[in-house]
Amino acid sequence: MKRIMLRIAYDGTNYHGWQIQKNGVTVEQRLSEALLALLGAETELIGASRTDAGVHAIGNVAVFDTDSRIPPGKFAVALNHYLPEDIRILHSQEVRTDFHPRHCDSMKTYEYTILAAQREIPIFSRYSYHVYRPLDVEKMRIVAEMLEGTHDFSAFCSAGGQVKDKVRTIYNINIKEVPFSDRWGDNLSGILEGGEVRIRVSGNGFLYNMVRIIAGTLIEAGQGDRTAASIREALESGDRSLTGPTAPPQGLMLLGIQYLEDL
Amino acid sequence: MKRIMLRIAYDGTNYHGWQIQKNGVTVEQRLSEALLALLGAETELIGASRTDAGVHAIGNVAVFDTDSRIPPGKFAVALNHYLPEDIRILHSQEVRTDFHPRHCDSMKTYEYTILAAQREIPIFSRYSYHVYRPLDVEKMRIVAEMLEGTHDFSAFCSAGGQVKDKVRTIYNINIKEVPFSDRWGDNLSGILEGGEVRIRVSGNGFLYNMVRIIAGTLIEAGQGDRTAASIREALESGDRSLTGPTAPPQGLMLLGIQYLEDL
Repeated sequence: MKRIMLRIAYDGTNYHGWQIQKNGVTVEQRLSEALLALLGAETELIGASRTDAGVHAIGNVAVFDTDSRIPPGKFAVALNHYLPEDIRILHSQEVRTDFHPRHCDSMKTYEYTILAAQREIPIFSRYSYHVYRPLDVEKMRIVAEMLEGTHDFSAFCSAGGQVKDKVRTIYNINIKEVPFSDRWGDNLSGILEGGEVRIRVSGNGFLYNMVRIIAGTLIEAGQGDRTAASIREALESGDRSLTGPTAPPQGLMLLGIQYLEDL
Repeated sequence: MKRIMLRIAYDGTNYHGWQIQKNGVTVEQRLSEALLALLGAETELIGASRTDAGVHAIGNVAVFDTDSRIPPGKFAVALNHYLPEDIRILHSQEVRTDFHPRHCDSMKTYEYTILAAQREIPIFSRYSYHVYRPLDVEKMRIVAEMLEGTHDFSAFCSAGGQVKDKVRTIYNINIKEVPFSDRWGDNLSGILEGGEVRIRVSGNGFLYNMVRIIAGTLIEAGQGDRTAASIREALESGDRSLTGPTAPPQGLMLLGIQYLEDL
């Protein structure tokens, strides 16, 4: 018996998230169906990150066990044959049989993309959150820096999570501005000011909706509606009312998971 | 009577191109319907660029005449109220009454986006063309440079265009590589190599499918299947068989139109 690890990319728009559920089609379900079609047997999947409905990924991870003689590196191509186009396996490899993608030291990286402009641009709307009120990115960075490190993130967690220990470590939050002029030259100059603001967050794990609440909080900080002092109080008290709203899912993408143990 | 100019952005995925036709919904049609709803009268639109089915835009241009008392700058917001979300007016302004968006000296800029990677990544597939065979971007640049300037582009034109004069001037072709590592750090390292290749073309006008044929030809040049000598022959002979295929529409976006006369 071998354990195979998959690196999975998907457009989350048409899925009710990763995890199999009764009320809608999920990424895990489509992948289970592809495994059944390929291997002829029900195969249990263990996913690393249960992304929410509408959230995208380029580097989610899942493992499964199989006796198949398909070479480990060939599962990517073989499964893509049975998957819909909005789910692609980018890479497959064998890992040790006791490797567990969640119970393992790892660094997860997410990116939250904001379209910061007076008007929505249609080609952005599927993969970003449109914010029309101006953002002061320096104010966002001050708050972001306060969130780095090991904290109790109870104030950055939606109700409904089953985890009791709310202490997590954020290794880094990077906020990058990409003005339209960097991306497209002067083709929008005089027509529309603004650009993208990309918030990249790396940590050892994230609570339910944590990255989206961080994004919602940083947006409010950038609009001058939330002070550094109130964020400090949120971290100390765990009071969810002191942080911003859960930013919408389409702006969020799971970039990747790096494992800090041998695979 | 005033003439109003609109700057129009759209996701072309769900449209049969710009121009009104019998067999499917077009961007022009939706915009005409919005004008009718707003102004209460049929209003003729003159568009600058008749983009093909599936092609996107952030800066297409159209004008119309109206007696409405709506301030010229307010038409953007007013029309967006009646438009579907995948069409947005970014800007509106008054222009001189004899301004014609096609019969006017202008520079149009298009961008063609290639996903150059062994595997498709779903979040790219709506706005790029996936090319899995490796591209030598330097070879692409050599051919691109040959296309700059004033030439008869008959060999870069699909049958079906009604224009007789096939001489056009390309001011500039810029080819930019954006490796995954620039965009997303090392999150795909060891999983998937590659990145985006963006071809930006500016010219005084383009023939039917011209930018997509340029993209298809540059891709073949980058794969070593088409030499600089054959491109020279194509420009001299006008022989369509000496250029590459018409690259698919979803990779193409009209970035903008700059008018070189007073508006």
